[in-house]
Amino acid sequence: MGGVSHPRSRRVSAGIVGGSGYSALELLRLLARHPRLELKWIFSRSHTGEPVASVYPSLRGVVSASFAPVEEPAALAGQADVVFFATPAGVAAEQAPLFLESGAAVVDLSADFRFRDEETYRRVYGKSHPHPEWLASSVYGIPELFRDELAHARLVGNPGCYPTAALLALAPLAREALLDPDAPIVVSATSGISGAGSQPGPAYHFPGATENVRPYGVPGHRHAPEMAAVLGRLVPPGKSAPVLTFIPHLVPASRGILATCVARPAREMPDEELLERYRRFYASHPWVRVLEPPELPQTKAVQGSNFCDLAIRWDPVAGVVVAMAAIDNLVKGAAGQAVQNVNVLMGWDEREGLEVVPLYP
Amino acid sequence: MGGVSHPRSRRVSAGIVGGSGYSALELLRLLARHPRLELKWIFSRSHTGEPVASVYPSLRGVVSASFAPVEEPAALAGQADVVFFATPAGVAAEQAPLFLESGAAVVDLSADFRFRDEETYRRVYGKSHPHPEWLASSVYGIPELFRDELAHARLVGNPGCYPTAALLALAPLAREALLDPDAPIVVSATSGISGAGSQPGPAYHFPGATENVRPYGVPGHRHAPEMAAVLGRLVPPGKSAPVLTFIPHLVPASRGILATCVARPAREMPDEELLERYRRFYASHPWVRVLEPPELPQTKAVQGSNFCDLAIRWDPVAGVVVAMAAIDNLVKGAAGQAVQNVNVLMGWDEREGLEVVPLYP
Amino acid sequence: MGGVSHPRSRRVSAGIVGGSGYSALELLRLLARHPRLELKWIFSRSHTGEPVASVYPSLRGVVSASFAPVEEPAALAGQADVVFFATPAGVAAEQAPLFLESGAAVVDLSADFRFRDEETYRRVYGKSHPHPEWLASSVYGIPELFRDELAHARLVGNPGCYPTAALLALAPLAREALLDPDAPIVVSATSGISGAGSQPGPAYHFPGATENVRPYGVPGHRHAPEMAAVLGRLVPPGKSAPVLTFIPHLVPASRGILATCVARPAREMPDEELLERYRRFYASHPWVRVLEPPELPQTKAVQGSNFCDLAIRWDPVAGVVVAMAAIDNLVKGAAGQAVQNVNVLMGWDEREGLEVVPLYP
Amino acid sequence: MGGVSHPRSRRVSAGIVGGSGYSALELLRLLARHPRLELKWIFSRSHTGEPVASVYPSLRGVVSASFAPVEEPAALAGQADVVFFATPAGVAAEQAPLFLESGAAVVDLSADFRFRDEETYRRVYGKSHPHPEWLASSVYGIPELFRDELAHARLVGNPGCYPTAALLALAPLAREALLDPDAPIVVSATSGISGAGSQPGPAYHFPGATENVRPYGVPGHRHAPEMAAVLGRLVPPGKSAPVLTFIPHLVPASRGILATCVARPAREMPDEELLERYRRFYASHPWVRVLEPPELPQTKAVQGSNFCDLAIRWDPVAGVVVAMAAIDNLVKGAAGQAVQNVNVLMGWDEREGLEVVPLYP
Repeated sequence: MGGVSHPRSRRVSAGIVGGSGYSALELLRLLARHPRLELKWIFSRSHTGEPVASVYPSLRGVVSASFAPVEEPAALAGQADVVFFATPAGVAAEQAPLFLESGAAVVDLSADFRFRDEETYRRVYGKSHPHPEWLASSVYGIPELFRDELAHARLVGNPGCYPTAALLALAPLAREALLDPDAPIVVSATSGISGAGSQPGPAYHFPGATENVRPYGVPGHRHAPEMAAVLGRLVPPGKSAPVLTFIPHLVPASRGILATCVARPAREMPDEELLERYRRFYASHPWVRVLEPPELPQTKAVQGSNFCDLAIRWDPVAGVVVAMAAIDNLVKGAAGQAVQNVNVLMGWDEREGLEVVPLYP
Repeated sequence: MGGVSHPRSRRVSAGIVGGSGYSALELLRLLARHPRLELKWIFSRSHTGEPVASVYPSLRGVVSASFAPVEEPAALAGQADVVFFATPAGVAAEQAPLFLESGAAVVDLSADFRFRDEETYRRVYGKSHPHPEWLASSVYGIPELFRDELAHARLVGNPGCYPTAALLALAPLAREALLDPDAPIVVSATSGISGAGSQPGPAYHFPGATENVRPYGVPGHRHAPEMAAVLGRLVPPGKSAPVLTFIPHLVPASRGILATCVARPAREMPDEELLERYRRFYASHPWVRVLEPPELPQTKAVQGSNFCDLAIRWDPVAGVVVAMAAIDNLVKGAAGQAVQNVNVLMGWDEREGLEVVPLYP
Repeated sequence: MGGVSHPRSRRVSAGIVGGSGYSALELLRLLARHPRLELKWIFSRSHTGEPVASVYPSLRGVVSASFAPVEEPAALAGQADVVFFATPAGVAAEQAPLFLESGAAVVDLSADFRFRDEETYRRVYGKSHPHPEWLASSVYGIPELFRDELAHARLVGNPGCYPTAALLALAPLAREALLDPDAPIVVSATSGISGAGSQPGPAYHFPGATENVRPYGVPGHRHAPEMAAVLGRLVPPGKSAPVLTFIPHLVPASRGILATCVARPAREMPDEELLERYRRFYASHPWVRVLEPPELPQTKAVQGSNFCDLAIRWDPVAGVVVAMAAIDNLVKGAAGQAVQNVNVLMGWDEREGLEVVPLYP
Repeated sequence: MGGVSHPRSRRVSAGIVGGSGYSALELLRLLARHPRLELKWIFSRSHTGEPVASVYPSLRGVVSASFAPVEEPAALAGQADVVFFATPAGVAAEQAPLFLESGAAVVDLSADFRFRDEETYRRVYGKSHPHPEWLASSVYGIPELFRDELAHARLVGNPGCYPTAALLALAPLAREALLDPDAPIVVSATSGISGAGSQPGPAYHFPGATENVRPYGVPGHRHAPEMAAVLGRLVPPGKSAPVLTFIPHLVPASRGILATCVARPAREMPDEELLERYRRFYASHPWVRVLEPPELPQTKAVQGSNFCDLAIRWDPVAGVVVAMAAIDNLVKGAAGQAVQNVNVLMGWDEREGLEVVPLYP
């Protein structure tokens, strides 16, 4: 039950650009209890000057700050050691360099810095990147896969929620070139509706969303090329990763991603071997829990926390492995991972400020 | 908006064995409005003699019958033209022959008569079948796939809820040998919790089930060999069907199955061709709705109804087709399909008694 | 199990003004199976000319009509025997007279014709009524309370969902002057979120609405004066009704109102007497089910149906009666009651077209 | 954003009797992060010797303890400074004295020590108390109302979830004798289903519980006399409290109580006066948030936290005040309040170990 020790000295200051969505709310929730990272300012064009707690009733009595009384985030450059972008696509691409040049580290929760080459970005997002010169130095922010690079990073492309779950489920096989490159990987995943953001819309209106399950964005969801690109980096040099199809579904829950990944391994893989490989791969990573059979992941067991729960099974009839991952899309899939990335950047214990116990039931 | 015409003459009498679960409740709901099929008796060991409406408050003022005041279903043999078994595994295998011999038609909603050969039954259910002599003459009850056989059947093995959805999604390709036999099919599906029955249990207790998504029975769910067996019958003689892996998930909804099936076709299949094939295949089947792009199925659009909504897409990146089906697991996945099977057996319009409009939102 | 017999002759034609909300969708669902009332046209400014089924996926294969290809509802005057208004406040007040003058009967699901005197309307809705001359002849559309007047009505003010539930719960006591006029009635009610309409908004966005219960509009919800006004008509001449406070709450469900009404009776009222009075009061009303103790109402037992389930208890400690009502807010609380009102107007069986069995579970 | 400082010294040891329910799970969640209170042992007859994390998957990687390998809790007497009873009714009444006599403080989350006199206990629970000698010295554990007594208590009767919400909502008026003693108070409340415990049962089975709202225990719920008894202690000597009726409802949520309390005040009470009184009453209590109009409480804004959110309104039409409270039934309504009580007993900051930020959305 020990936990991280919490010296209150040497606090690092943090700013948040884009304060009106769920990722910002989660960042606020986590920073409120982070022993080393302190909210310095938060910017939202739609809430300039308002008390944070009047926008987010859950934070009343917890966060006393107000949204920065400025018109443009640029006015805040130089006023925080770390800047989180929790903004729609395109904003960080434009504005992150300003903060980087002022000496801050930047963690971008949008997709603007997730691709290393501009061409892929352009293909997926349909426009050219305004600051392609920063792409090469950005690091994809899954600490369990890229910890060493992140330790020296200044700019982090915080991953999408689906890719986080799918890549953690597939990485131990990909890293060892154990996936048959000729068989397509199938990633079928469900997401709680908070994954679609805080903006109301017909598909997220409670009466139609409750008691409903629906696939969407099939094929062509932007997280598919993100998964494929990172998978390609995970396989050993000279090897190629399998192609991948991705089918996301909305389910009637607020939070939680369950990613079910099916792949054909290069050879038969009994459960014991799979389990042993996964255990070893994640042994030094406090936020991944490899479950003991017969346990399978469930999204509620990680609710509100930074954990990723994993299970892996061999299906002898179909000759495939089934890797299943559960995360809270707003924590390990967004704000929690962003804080974890800062912990790595700063050389702190990866658990700092993230020790929220999952809320169950 | 017309609908079926409803002559009230020539009613056929129906009995239900196993009256304490959701399938029985659904049968009661549907029979209460069926113009030709009339409930004669309902048997439940746990409710002998009780008024149906005292067990099912939703049926107060709708169903005035009581559970049969007898100790054993055998006492009711000969007293109905059609007998539905909505019983746990093993009961129909024992008792259906009694009713068949009395001249009744039998629709078994359990798995006892879904396999044609005893060996498969024994392998999947781990015991020998007490009446294997009836297996060969039983017909698998998906009218869209086996209508001609059903028209002459006396004994129907009503399909599992997951196989209904997956097989309707895959049949148009399987029938024409358009599935690559060397690539495993992946069926990833979600089910509302009513699919697990009306018996309370820890995994279905509301506090832990709400806001939760969890896979279960991976691998080895009994519906996987059921799908595989029927798929094998669908492919043309001399061709073989691909192997199949099946991953079911519980989602926080009462009703609804969404089956997402991924398969590699024998050759490239543009969306227009797929759509055209599916439209043609289901043209004469009133309970399958092939959706026009960009529409995708959603379980709530079929809630409470006998519809199966289908969509199919080609993923050019992974070289696979994604076929998605939505059904109400208790209707098209159980009681509704049972009634539809009776309609076919009796030579009635397939829509008789099933014209419940989906309840949305 | 019999039910209404369904002669298909002598159909009456119906029009719907305001076709883009949940009430319209419910009217479409019910009319699609009504044996005597036939949809002639439906008007929606936002869907002119579109097929109904493309707007409401649940109705694909059920409703083949399209929205009227006209710019203004006035163009449709004279083209239907009955016109339903399912429009925002103010529209029916303006346009209903046109249809009334063309000879049609009008059932207004908005609040425009629920008050008999213009003064109350003006006080509650904050503006003057454009056609006050029609207010006196409008009839408040709860058939269980005003059947005789409705039988001769041409214009029906279809009640609010909360007032329907609360008034049915309180009427048997009010009619007999059995409520203590000096003790305020407390109506505390919960509503599924469909009661707020189909328009997305922050309070109805799934992530914030699930797992949430919240009161709203306290005090001052517009349904409070509606309840008070009708309660005043129910008490015998010369008697006065108690004042009333109303606290509505949003709960994480799509449908269903549960109204809990607490009142001090004029004298002690043992449970048996209460039950007997309620049973007698509703004996000839097929859509009210007075529950036998110990049963209490639950919204799911009426889901999708026109039933109102009632229970009543005497609390000897506090000296109050607790009357509880459950309805489906979109059916008995809106579209179902509207159809029931037409049935009464036309002299048909009140059950015509409404025999949807509640969907449970 | 400061928060409590966390010296890790001088830890107090805690034991939990009754480890298989939701209250125990919540105690474990909170103790895992409490800087001064340390889990020493946990006892559950059904899990003897098992690792806690194998029973509660959410605690894997968080709690490394196992259930005590003993047959009876008595074997653990003397081994903890504080003992929580999270047991069914009757267990603490039998066994708490053993632990008290060993020198431990006891916080009983069941109802065994909530009543001061045995007669009321016997009337409500229908049996005599095995250790009535301890009743007089037990203190009712709402720190906001009985902080001084709690500071010197050895035995705490931790309140019911409904009484916590209702009493916090009514206390500022009761304490000043501002409630009209002649008008009954109406407490209408909704609870998430976790309030019924972790034991599965038909009313809590997901399919029937989702999309359902139902009153229960009307009249006669055991929390009604608990509220009445404590209300009687709150009014000034010589004054009497009004009688009270209580109507609880189950709603489709895991957590959260919303209590709506309606009372007639002794005189007119404009909103500003009410708000000012409530603000003042709770000024020194960190876990009560008195909301500024127009904000009203919502259960999700306190989810997972120890907050109680309150709003109060004057209804000039009915001449009543409406006081609304939202709590998380498992935290402020059970385990959180128990920890808060220990904080008070120990003279610690009341916030110690409870600073979980509400989980929204």
